[in-house]
Amino acid sequence: MNKFKVSFAPSVRRLPSYLNIIMQSQRNGDAYISGTVIAQELNLEPIQVRKDLAITGIVGKPKKGYPVDDLIAAIERYLGWDRTRDAVLVGAGNLGSALIGYQEFRLHGMRVLAAFDTDPSKIGMKVHGVPIHSMEEIEQRLSALSAQIAILTVPSPFAQATAETLVRSGIKSIWNFTNAKLKVPDGVVVQREDPSSGYAMLTVQIQARSRAEP
Amino acid sequence: MNKFKVSFAPSVRRLPSYLNIIMQSQRNGDAYISGTVIAQELNLEPIQVRKDLAITGIVGKPKKGYPVDDLIAAIERYLGWDRTRDAVLVGAGNLGSALIGYQEFRLHGMRVLAAFDTDPSKIGMKVHGVPIHSMEEIEQRLSALSAQIAILTVPSPFAQATAETLVRSGIKSIWNFTNAKLKVPDGVVVQREDPSSGYAMLTVQIQARSRAEP
Repeated sequence: MNKFKVSFAPSVRRLPSYLNIIMQSQRNGDAYISGTVIAQELNLEPIQVRKDLAITGIVGKPKKGYPVDDLIAAIERYLGWDRTRDAVLVGAGNLGSALIGYQEFRLHGMRVLAAFDTDPSKIGMKVHGVPIHSMEEIEQRLSALSAQIAILTVPSPFAQATAETLVRSGIKSIWNFTNAKLKVPDGVVVQREDPSSGYAMLTVQIQARSRAEP
Repeated sequence: MNKFKVSFAPSVRRLPSYLNIIMQSQRNGDAYISGTVIAQELNLEPIQVRKDLAITGIVGKPKKGYPVDDLIAAIERYLGWDRTRDAVLVGAGNLGSALIGYQEFRLHGMRVLAAFDTDPSKIGMKVHGVPIHSMEEIEQRLSALSAQIAILTVPSPFAQATAETLVRSGIKSIWNFTNAKLKVPDGVVVQREDPSSGYAMLTVQIQARSRAEP
């Protein structure tokens, strides 16, 4: 269904954390950073960090580590965070509004041009400076916008129909925050997020602790 | 640092998706659901689904599949979603407010009793029915509440100091949405979420597609 399978998904997921630490190092004026320092900060094995960073094409120097500026550039290039990507958001509820306001995504190149909702009290308003339009105007408005990404935060029962409208309107990539498993044509990228996954990890650890305690 | 390492993390992360599908099946009045059906819905291999479900202690019957009611109960018991967990939220910004309003967590037992913030314009207000108190009152208020979980959505530079206050006030589990790698005493569970991980997965797929296209 999705032909752009990511070979190094766990590594890719760790790269943003590395980037944070390396950028901090850059702000501190460091010229080099070692894989061991990054590993310590994140409680990982140094060999893991070196393998993860290797997918960006950069290799550290013995004793010195990685040149900070080059390493940042290599990670951003690999992730495609070195360019701006225009997006729209569909479903301007709590989660949608939070995503529009989340600074990190903006820093990494995502620019939300417009939001869409069905709630008449929201239409015509702005959320974090982004205008909210009627859902009925999606096709018409998307034809005038350069957006290629849609952030999908509608209620799950509406997800598939909305995705179909988006694809018909030229959207090539959907960031899916609903519970629906979307069916899309070949060539459309779908990245699904399930906020409940993290909650499951939290509660399973709490369960493990309560079993370990007398 | 954290002694409650989760052995089956990828499986645990998938269980909420399974639960959604199985609950849908329950609403449809089905008595049994097969691993193959779940696998098809989520675009996974049936063997993977059976292995994942096995960690909850349930085994399917040949040809019939899993009894729906028992399977739901087994997953909820394994995840600890069969009981209510009291929580507080620290940092009532965009992300924090969205998390308080996110229905899924409530459905799975998390009850947010109070929020804390430093912004005087927020203190005394409510967000999704949850009162916002001054950050200065954390220790005093936590001693009167039964909360064991803290959701941490403060700006990253304040994360470590806030975590220390929380632990001192009896919090045993921190759901960390900041970029900080928290240092906490043994026995305190920390689950870190990095919303940028999903964004990295999205953009890497977009990069892969643009390389695949002529």
